[in-house]
Amino acid sequence: MTKTPKMSESTTTSLAPMLSVRNGAVAVDFYKAAFGADELFHLDGDDGGVVAEFQIGASHFWIADESPTHLNFSPESLGGSSARMVLVVDDPDAVFNRAVAAGAVSIAPVLDQSYGWRVGRVVDPFGHHWEIGKPLSQ
Amino acid sequence: MTKTPKMSESTTTSLAPMLSVRNGAVAVDFYKAAFGADELFHLDGDDGGVVAEFQIGASHFWIADESPTHLNFSPESLGGSSARMVLVVDDPDAVFNRAVAAGAVSIAPVLDQSYGWRVGRVVDPFGHHWEIGKPLSQ
Repeated sequence: MTKTPKMSESTTTSLAPMLSVRNGAVAVDFYKAAFGADELFHLDGDDGGVVAEFQIGASHFWIADESPTHLNFSPESLGGSSARMVLVVDDPDAVFNRAVAAGAVSIAPVLDQSYGWRVGRVVDPFGHHWEIGKPLSQ
Repeated sequence: MTKTPKMSESTTTSLAPMLSVRNGAVAVDFYKAAFGADELFHLDGDDGGVVAEFQIGASHFWIADESPTHLNFSPESLGGSSARMVLVVDDPDAVFNRAVAAGAVSIAPVLDQSYGWRVGRVVDPFGHHWEIGKPLSQ
């Protein structure tokens, strides 16, 4: 097997989640409104599906219409989500409120937690969960 | 509503996925072996559950044992995953092979794609899907 450099030492290596959704076109507008995400890339497929890449801070994420035949399932199809997004921001209360105003639903309000974070949790209209918080030391 | 600074302009804002898994302790070893991920944080809960944070390149991700009562479901519980990880690396072939050697299963081999990427896809032993690729221009 080819020797692989330790990826944590690579400057080009990056990881971004790709969230499967129903109605990607609507989801694009939601993620812009809820989180002020910059849309870096947008592809409208022939089948009406959307693939879009967003930037929040220095981090990227993607959304794409689900395609069960390709094993890409929305939380709505699965009845839950297998990953949640951990969003660290300067002002969790403001970002939480903005997400709720855009259509997300509170799962847990923003509170100081015993493990040293101020954090809340929402589920977005597409079934993806977001923990919105910051370390209490900040 | 409080005015929220555009988060894409914030230097402290970051996003990282938290993958729900069964048997987190085993998963920690897999992600180290498969992707050479650095473990930055590890918490063993009283219930045997694990929460761990990893770094790959400049990106972070988390894993945690599932907790359906907290709406955190593993792909095994859901029968699929609602998000896939897009991993960009210098050498997709080598990283793909390393992941398979560590126990991941090939879903699509690493090939040049018409949309300008060289990319393959695996599913890991915990049901999370990883696209491993790079832009062909690199």
